[in-house]
This record gives sequence, structure tokens and C-alpha cells, in this order.
Amino acid sequence: MRRNRVHSFLAALPLVLLNSASFAEAPKADPARAPVEKHGAAFTDAFNRGDIAAVAALYSDDALVFPPDGDMVQGRSAIEALWKGTRDAGMKDLAFTVLDVHSSGNLAVEAGKADFKMQPANQAESSQTVKYVVVWKREKGGAWKVFRDIWNSMAPAPK
Amino acid sequence: MRRNRVHSFLAALPLVLLNSASFAEAPKADPARAPVEKHGAAFTDAFNRGDIAAVAALYSDDALVFPPDGDMVQGRSAIEALWKGTRDAGMKDLAFTVLDVHSSGNLAVEAGKADFKMQPANQAESSQTVKYVVVWKREKGGAWKVFRDIWNSMAPAPK
Repeated sequence: MRRNRVHSFLAALPLVLLNSASFAEAPKADPARAPVEKHGAAFTDAFNRGDIAAVAALYSDDALVFPPDGDMVQGRSAIEALWKGTRDAGMKDLAFTVLDVHSSGNLAVEAGKADFKMQPANQAESSQTVKYVVVWKREKGGAWKVFRDIWNSMAPAPK
Repeated sequence: MRRNRVHSFLAALPLVLLNSASFAEAPKADPARAPVEKHGAAFTDAFNRGDIAAVAALYSDDALVFPPDGDMVQGRSAIEALWKGTRDAGMKDLAFTVLDVHSSGNLAVEAGKADFKMQPANQAESSQTVKYVVVWKREKGGAWKVFRDIWNSMAPAPK
């Protein structure tokens, strides 16, 4: 009887380990992923309808944006001017694909890709994709704001 | 007497507020700044002497690098190949200027500029500057590793 109990215990062990391993390998949703995705959707919705003040409001007061082919842009009013200029230059149909969100404390880092179209005045429309890193900061009160925003090109530039 | 005490208290108040404001405005060194700068120096030292394995060892196992004009590069061996290719293409004299480090929990975000020279085989040397965002992750054991690494160009590309 005692031997049977020991045998039963040992027989059950691998099943327990297997379940633990399966659990460890299951995708874990980072707690910042939901707010990051929600704020990203708010960004594209606001940009695509032309509400650039609402875009700028998603950034922290001390945000830095790093547009390619230029210097850093610091502060919310300069960031609003950057996005207004980008939209005026013909950017439209902006959409983000979030690939990864990893948070610790009051910082979260998001990696992803952004698809958009460029249609300068009187010119043909072109589709573009960039890859990006956005660092979010959770401010007092709990709101996540964009703290660092940088992207660059996917494909080799045409020669 | 009581009135004098009240008066003294009120007179002292602005001085206290002034001191608090001065203290709040004093530059606060982020606790991650020293390790980030040390690891950055280790990166440039290793790169400039051609020890690309030591460069790759500064990245976390799950690091993502975002080189301009290409796709993301994932994992340490692919990252080592990226930097070996970059050095073979003529990059040298790499130096970082750290502009800001902000940490929370086990993440730290660094903003900065990188200066380097490009000298492809049998071609003239040129100086370049890029701006970057590097996200560092503190791993079990306390070591800070590069988790996300992205940069882009400063000046408009020549037409």
C-alpha cells in the first residue's frame, strides 16, 4: 500500500513539471501592453483626423522625439509643430503594429512598426513602413505618456 | 510677542520655498547614469579595437537592434554579425555623447549622439553623427545590458 502511494507520487511528478513548463512558456501579457496599445490607437485616430493637439497631448512635458534626417525635437509645442508639418507634407493613414511591450517601474518600452501613406500635393501616393522604439513614462496620477519616440527606415533608400 | 512670532514665521516662508525650488532644480544624477556611461565606454573601446564579441556581450539575450535602412536584428549572434559588418564597411573612431539617462525599476533609457568616421576601402574618410535611444535592462545579478538600440541620421541626406 505504501509502495503504491510512492509510485503514484512519482508517476504524477512529470505531469506537474510539464504543466509548469507549459505555463512558463505561455505568452505573458506585460501590464503596460493594454494602455500602450490604447494610447497608440488614440495617437493614430487623432493624427488621421488631423487633431494634432490631441497627438501632442499624448507626450510628456519632457518628451524627446527623434525624427530621421534632423535634430531632436523637445517639448510638447515643438512636437505638435513636428506632427503638423508631417501631416501637411502629406502623411496619412497612419497605423501602428505593436511587436513587443516590456515594462518595469514607471517605464515601458514598445517596439513596433508603423505603416502610413505619403501623398504630397499634386503627387502620387506612396506606402511606407518604418520601425520604431517608443519609451512610455507613467506619470503621477497613473497616465502613460510618450517620453522618447524614435524611428527609422526599413528598406535601403533608393539611389 | 505673539504677533512677532507670526511675522517671523511668515517672513521665513518665502526663503524656505526658494530653497526647495533651488533644490528641485538642481541636476539629479540618475542612479543608472554611471553604469550606462561605463558600459557605453566599454562599447566604444571594444568596437574601436575590433573586439566585436565584447560589443555583442553588452546586449541582453533578447536584445533588438534597429539599424536604419533595414529590418530589426534580434539576438546576440545576429547583433555581433551586424557590428562586424559595420566595422568591415569602414566604421571607426566611434564615440558616444550621453545627453540624458532616466531609469525606473529595471529599465533605463539613454538619449545621446554618436560620432564616428566611415572609411570604406580605397575611399575618402567622412565624419558622421547620429542620434540614438538605447534602452538598458538590469538583469538578475544586477548587470545592465542593452535591450533596445535604435538610431537615425541628423542632417538631411544629400540629394
